[in-house]
Amino acid sequence: MDSGVSGKVAQATFEEISASDFFYRNRDIAGLTNPSRAIFVAIREVVENSLDAAESQKIPPDIYVRLSFESEATKETQIYKLRVQDNGSGIQPRFIPSAFGQVLYGSKYKLKQMRGTFGLGGKMAVLYGQITTHQPAFVTSSTGGAKIYSFKLMIDIQRNRPIILDRKVLINKDGWRGTIIEFTLEGDYLRAMPKILEYFKQTAMVNPYANLTFVDPKGRFYKFTRATTNMPEPPKETMPHPYGVDVELLQRLIQITQYKTMMEFLKGHFHRVGEITAQKFLEFSALSPSKNPKKLTHEEIVRLMQNLKKFKDFLPPDASCLSPLGEELLKAGIMKELKPDYLVVNQRKPSTYAGHPFIVEMAIAYGGDVPKRGNFVIYRFANKIPLLYDEASDVSYRVISAMNWRRYKVSPDMPIAIVVHICSTKVPYKTVGKEFIADRSEVRREEANALREVSRQLGHFLTRQEHVHMEKKRLGIFSKYLPKIAQFSTMLARQEKVPDIDVLLKSVQKYGAEEK
Amino acid sequence: MDSGVSGKVAQATFEEISASDFFYRNRDIAGLTNPSRAIFVAIREVVENSLDAAESQKIPPDIYVRLSFESEATKETQIYKLRVQDNGSGIQPRFIPSAFGQVLYGSKYKLKQMRGTFGLGGKMAVLYGQITTHQPAFVTSSTGGAKIYSFKLMIDIQRNRPIILDRKVLINKDGWRGTIIEFTLEGDYLRAMPKILEYFKQTAMVNPYANLTFVDPKGRFYKFTRATTNMPEPPKETMPHPYGVDVELLQRLIQITQYKTMMEFLKGHFHRVGEITAQKFLEFSALSPSKNPKKLTHEEIVRLMQNLKKFKDFLPPDASCLSPLGEELLKAGIMKELKPDYLVVNQRKPSTYAGHPFIVEMAIAYGGDVPKRGNFVIYRFANKIPLLYDEASDVSYRVISAMNWRRYKVSPDMPIAIVVHICSTKVPYKTVGKEFIADRSEVRREEANALREVSRQLGHFLTRQEHVHMEKKRLGIFSKYLPKIAQFSTMLARQEKVPDIDVLLKSVQKYGAEEK
Repeated sequence: MDSGVSGKVAQATFEEISASDFFYRNRDIAGLTNPSRAIFVAIREVVENSLDAAESQKIPPDIYVRLSFESEATKETQIYKLRVQDNGSGIQPRFIPSAFGQVLYGSKYKLKQMRGTFGLGGKMAVLYGQITTHQPAFVTSSTGGAKIYSFKLMIDIQRNRPIILDRKVLINKDGWRGTIIEFTLEGDYLRAMPKILEYFKQTAMVNPYANLTFVDPKGRFYKFTRATTNMPEPPKETMPHPYGVDVELLQRLIQITQYKTMMEFLKGHFHRVGEITAQKFLEFSALSPSKNPKKLTHEEIVRLMQNLKKFKDFLPPDASCLSPLGEELLKAGIMKELKPDYLVVNQRKPSTYAGHPFIVEMAIAYGGDVPKRGNFVIYRFANKIPLLYDEASDVSYRVISAMNWRRYKVSPDMPIAIVVHICSTKVPYKTVGKEFIADRSEVRREEANALREVSRQLGHFLTRQEHVHMEKKRLGIFSKYLPKIAQFSTMLARQEKVPDIDVLLKSVQKYGAEEK
Repeated sequence: MDSGVSGKVAQATFEEISASDFFYRNRDIAGLTNPSRAIFVAIREVVENSLDAAESQKIPPDIYVRLSFESEATKETQIYKLRVQDNGSGIQPRFIPSAFGQVLYGSKYKLKQMRGTFGLGGKMAVLYGQITTHQPAFVTSSTGGAKIYSFKLMIDIQRNRPIILDRKVLINKDGWRGTIIEFTLEGDYLRAMPKILEYFKQTAMVNPYANLTFVDPKGRFYKFTRATTNMPEPPKETMPHPYGVDVELLQRLIQITQYKTMMEFLKGHFHRVGEITAQKFLEFSALSPSKNPKKLTHEEIVRLMQNLKKFKDFLPPDASCLSPLGEELLKAGIMKELKPDYLVVNQRKPSTYAGHPFIVEMAIAYGGDVPKRGNFVIYRFANKIPLLYDEASDVSYRVISAMNWRRYKVSPDMPIAIVVHICSTKVPYKTVGKEFIADRSEVRREEANALREVSRQLGHFLTRQEHVHMEKKRLGIFSKYLPKIAQFSTMLARQEKVPDIDVLLKSVQKYGAEEK
């Protein structure tokens, strides 16, 4: 940072900044745009780390969040203390300082479905707390062993290193496992409140095996109790798929590989490459199966990469490493929240972008508690995280806007909610703040197909509803005039008994009475 | 990067990644989402560095960009060589390797209006070239001295360090000054072409003192010749404004300061703080003017920060460090491009967000070559960079959508173009790819005010136009019937000479004939 006044512009001076310093200087790109959003982001990042930490151990998450008022800061902002406690895996003591006090340090750099992906959010929350309140963060954690470790930390932003102010070791007599993080930050809770509550509500909706408790600064208590203890399988780590490979990745694999032949190299480091596929591929790219990968020239590596992308016979990524919500869960969550008159969900087959497997799930709900807003209500989720900001930038918004809705008898003033969930080993977020999904063509295509499918079914429902409505009208007319006609006819025929018109009415009915 | 298959999930393992590795893994957030966007981003980042390098020296920029086809890569992508030559400041040889081969290293970390802000774009372009083609980058530069330095470079992504493959020193007999960068990358030029040409067109529009030449892979030659050699003053570096200060910044200033008293400290390190203001402020925050800043406790630093934000009597930032387009230039650029029937521009007074000064400029153009699209055409600029992607996410889009257009007699199906430019020592971009501006409330307010002002004037124009139209109609009716009436009256009065109705017509005319 230059603090002096610069005079005449001379030669440019260069400097290096740390990753921590970079994000400190550019908080907007991590979503920390204003005091309201900052407090939302802080809560969300810490909660998501907690959910990941519990899920990785197949433990039903129990997360307790407390935000308490500390003092006034400026006219519109206050100082709050945020405390989040979980029953997750816990963190080994040697990792604790960096896990909370060093940007770009983490356990999230894997090919596996996780909420966190950048190894950034939790630290940015702590960093934001530090630069607004200058207070240390407290982290207490145990992996369930004999001891509990407690740290008092700050971040050296210029060097991107944690500063350990204090460290305590306690006896873990109850075998507690989990992590507690506590720090203060400046924020505007009043403005952030609606989004924060919405965040908890939607998170509970797609994580029905989690207990979430939130105590807000007014002492209000929000509890979302789990509906099941049935946990999904913890996400598995996978190997890179050949379609997603670039030269850098190839080089890193070549550097670390133990394999001595191309055959073994391909089989051992790539997802969905077995003996036969490897053989075919090597033939395709005119490489000897016995060639030592470490002997590949630069040009051969480039060609290898291009051929890996060109070869048509690789199987698509196996989605066993993905943990979608599933149609049942999605349905149950939406029914509970929106009680629609009609609901249809669709889970697409696994697909892939740049070698990363992903699954799109889509639901459309009509009527019931779905509000009429003049446009559709959209719920977006990615790896079970609700996305609440910047809707118009999301690929799903584009897909929804581009639909020919008239074809499905749908108009924007109908009470319609659309729910979209994408899960992937790497969600293509467009921002570090994880607000919305980039417009990758593969993702767009899958979302469009899913949307067409659910819309088609909604269209049928609406058509049928229209028919039922017409029918009702028709029957209404019949049932209004038939008795009169019957009466007159009876009189004209000089009969006494009026014929039973119910039989007649039923004979013209197209739909069962239960459908009225 | 883990390459093995992980079995049962055990304790989380942690790792640190370099900044370079982080952006390599998360290319989407730097705008490198697909081969088409990648080639656009690469060109734009390098061109913007060149513009900055020339402007910093008050040299009218001369930038030559050549993109040439090298070979086919995949079915939809090709390998291209990108070469950009400028006549800017040049780079001293000791800085060259890191300036192009190390992420978060640069000359852009200053409080000053520049196109580049992240110290990232140029390197990301080179990095992208490397991971897709595995070719080195070539950089040749001279600051105009006796020698020209030439480097052949690659990036060690895992360590975030440049690798120097070759280095040459040449005699600079012609006193050449500037930089040439050349590297290969995979891309999809055909799809990127419209955006690239639009980028050059709009860049030329707001940088009329620059010569821009672009030779595309088909050998097509696009030349944008400067209209003036009048250069704006090079942007000046400023000190931080008290309203934008956080604890981290205060601490860094305290660490490096030479000043021994709070009085000197405030005057010496902050923008717009003179003797009297400093005195008043110290009184306001109950600090002794002679206190040594290095003796401030943690709590005092926090209180100091809060008071700096609360104090009402700091002058707003001085905008002399900003270089807006100016109403003349903006008008000329738009007239040339759109030839509208009506054009009004408005430059707002300098304002500030989080202590950063900024100026909003807004123009609205009606008719002429402005296309009718069913919605407004929006041109967005930030620090003289055209922003071409993700329009719907930009704060200006929200401002435009939220306007009550009926009030100004404007409807979306009119041929209307809106041009918005924000210049600042720190543009609040929402993404590292510099695609759109974050929704900072101060920026939104300024944009809304500017838009209201130009819309009000457009509204007057439209009202007047409507009146003129009505008047034309009225006169049309008069001039249709008056001759007949005159004729009949003449006949009835048994006169021979029909009276002169022109005089009559003129007497009912509300607007001058020239306005028809």
